[in-house]
Order: sequence, then structure tokens, then C-alpha cells
Amino acid sequence: MSAELRIQELGLELPPSVPPGGIYKPLVITGNVGYLSGHGPYLGDDKYITGRVGENLTLAEGQKAARQVGLALLRTMKDQLGDLNRVSRIVKSLALVNSTDDFCEQPQVINGFSELMRDVFGEDRGIGARSAIATNALPGNIAVEIELIIELNE
Amino acid sequence: MSAELRIQELGLELPPSVPPGGIYKPLVITGNVGYLSGHGPYLGDDKYITGRVGENLTLAEGQKAARQVGLALLRTMKDQLGDLNRVSRIVKSLALVNSTDDFCEQPQVINGFSELMRDVFGEDRGIGARSAIATNALPGNIAVEIELIIELNE
Amino acid sequence: MSAELRIQELGLELPPSVPPGGIYKPLVITGNVGYLSGHGPYLGDDKYITGRVGENLTLAEGQKAARQVGLALLRTMKDQLGDLNRVSRIVKSLALVNSTDDFCEQPQVINGFSELMRDVFGEDRGIGARSAIATNALPGNIAVEIELIIELNE
Repeated sequence: MSAELRIQELGLELPPSVPPGGIYKPLVITGNVGYLSGHGPYLGDDKYITGRVGENLTLAEGQKAARQVGLALLRTMKDQLGDLNRVSRIVKSLALVNSTDDFCEQPQVINGFSELMRDVFGEDRGIGARSAIATNALPGNIAVEIELIIELNE
Repeated sequence: MSAELRIQELGLELPPSVPPGGIYKPLVITGNVGYLSGHGPYLGDDKYITGRVGENLTLAEGQKAARQVGLALLRTMKDQLGDLNRVSRIVKSLALVNSTDDFCEQPQVINGFSELMRDVFGEDRGIGARSAIATNALPGNIAVEIELIIELNE
Repeated sequence: MSAELRIQELGLELPPSVPPGGIYKPLVITGNVGYLSGHGPYLGDDKYITGRVGENLTLAEGQKAARQVGLALLRTMKDQLGDLNRVSRIVKSLALVNSTDDFCEQPQVINGFSELMRDVFGEDRGIGARSAIATNALPGNIAVEIELIIELNE
């Protein structure tokens, strides 16, 4: 299955390239493992989905933000690798949800990201290991931040 | 030293297999490195040790929760690898403690996990790199969540 | 370019070796990848830069703390590897800023660390992937904690 074809079949629209938010690279490769920097729910035009789940964002809005982070990660992979078919596997994500102290459904929020990866890369290669946790604040008050480890075809 | 024998010698009781909490795999392997998803202090029967350290859990209770996360991780390793002796080294853990804003003894809490790994895999192979930090909330209000990187025999 | 020479040229003063804060190793190597444990802004004599950014630390003070974490990480690399020139690349950092709920400039804080790595290891090898996030508390109330993945010369 081709991830590039799947994106077309699903009619996914990737956001523009994410502007750098500090002194880091979007993707660093060592051996055949790629490390993607923490990404936010980028919409284009320097706009992100912002807010805290449990306060001014609902669970459903958090899921949509997590999915948008996934689209931004796909954009970066495409920009940096040229072709998404170079990705052989989603290995591991660390996913942070901007949460109130009493919001405890981070896994449900992050499923918005994980479903997208599964739909694009397939059940086997697209579902990775994962940690979904809360944080009390995120850069620019974005709703979700996810960093990702991927395996590349040699 | 055999990790399987050590578990018997120490009389450790591993919890049942941890039910999936979202769209992710418990363990993903790339090369000879295994990534274990964030695990909680699973007790069986869909029950976890819950609460926030500094609020309704003491340091000692937090340590016990961290140890229980370790037992759950051992269960997942055993389920996924068949034999714990396939683990050649504990590489790195990222350990999150559900903490009040003024609780600052995360390393002492997480020692409950690290002591278990040392006892099962030995001083050399069982002690990894580690980060112990706070978070303001965790899924289902669990007390501790730990993700783990392991090295496997080739 | 030699990282050892750069440290001399820049007149950098590394802190003493960081005392262990729990049951973990400062650095674990698997293959040619090194995992450094979460480090704080160590000053020597068991003293760290402490405080919460947005409350009792300014952005500039947070940046200085992030830079100090970098110096502590360089000390550990030097202690553990013997020679900083064994580091072939900064791969990825996870950087946590002790933040109030409404402080959202974590990337700017962590640039204090990233600039140091760039200055020591150069634009190409010294700038890695990165995630900069908030946390509501850190061990001993330190201002910043950073864990780091590095690639080593074979």
C-alpha cells in the first residue's frame, strides 16, 4: 500500500510547511530511524489550533487538533523525505495534550492522530507505540504537541 | 543471570496483560531496539492505582505505583517477546508522576520502578538512562506513567 | 571542527560532574546512539537554578537555566565518552520548562540550550530535532530539565 496514494484516496489536505519555532531541525535521521520534532496543530498562515482541553476545548475539538498535528507531521515528512513511501513504519509517538488538572482523557484525544496514521500507513505499519499525557501549558497555547519516531526504508 | 529466574526468585507477581487504552501497539521493534508504550500501574480487572502525589497519594504510595508500572511493563515484555531473556538492556525511561504543582520528589517516586528493573535485570543491564518529571494530569487519573526503550538480543 | 577546541575558543566553563539524583545512569549507549538522562541546570556544590518561569523566573532567566543544562550535559558527555569529538551529531532533545499555566514561550527558553549546542558542535551537527514543552513541577524545583539523544562516531 502506498501512503502517497492513500492521501489522495482519503482526500487529505496537508497544511503548508510548518514555520520553524526555534533553533531545531524538523527531522533528524540517524541510521534508518528518523526523529521528528514536536509539532503543533498547524493550519497555515502562522495559525494553530489553540486552547486547553477541559477548559475552552471539548474532547472532540481536542481530537481534531490531534489529527491536525498528524497532517502537519505528514507535511514535514513529505518535505524532508520527498516521498512518504520512504517511511517503513511509525515507531513511537510522545503526545502532549494541553489539559486542565482534572481532564483525564488524553488517549481519546490522541486517537485523532493515531487514526490518521493508521489510515495513511495501514494497520501494521501505521500504528506505533505511544504515550499520551497531559501538560499544563504548551508553546503559543497550542492544544496538542506530538513528537514522532519513524523507521525509514534503507 | 536470567531475568526469568530472577522473577521467580523474587516471587514477583506480574499483573494480567494490560488492556489497550487507545490506538497503539504495546511494543514496536526497529532493529534491535524496542519501544514500549506509556504504561500505567495496572492491577488487573481494568483497575489502576490512581491519584495525584502531594494531594491524595504519599511519596511511598507513589513509589508503589511506580513499581506496579514496572510489573505491568514486565508483563508486556513477556507477552510480546515470549521470554524476558531476550532483553539485553534497559536503555531509557521517561517517567511521569501525576503531581501537585509543589511536589518535587519525582526521582524518589520513580526509584520504585528503577529498583525493580535493577533487581530483575541486574546492576549493569537493568539500570538505564532516565528522566523523571511531573505532569498535572494523566489518563484515567493514574498516578504514574512510564514509557521505556529496551535493547534486544540479536 | 572540533567540539573540544570550540569549548576552549568560546571560553565555556563546564560545571562539575552532576551528582546522581536516583537509580539511573547518566548515559546509556546502544549501537552508535547515546541516551543522556534528564539533566537539570547544575551549578556545582549540589546547587541548581530553581524556580518556575512566569512566576519567579523571567524568560531571560529561563534561557540562562536552559543554557546551564546544556553545560551540564556537555560535562556528562565529556565524563562518559572521554572526548566530545566522539559525538557525531545531536539527534533529539526533549526539553521541559517548569512553567505557570499561562507561560507559553517554552521554545524561546530552550533556545538557550540549542544555541549552546550549535555553537559547540556547529550548525549541521549541533542542531537536532527538539520538543519544548511545559511541566507544572520538576525535581527539586529546577527550572529546566532536558534529556538528549546523540549519535556517536563508530
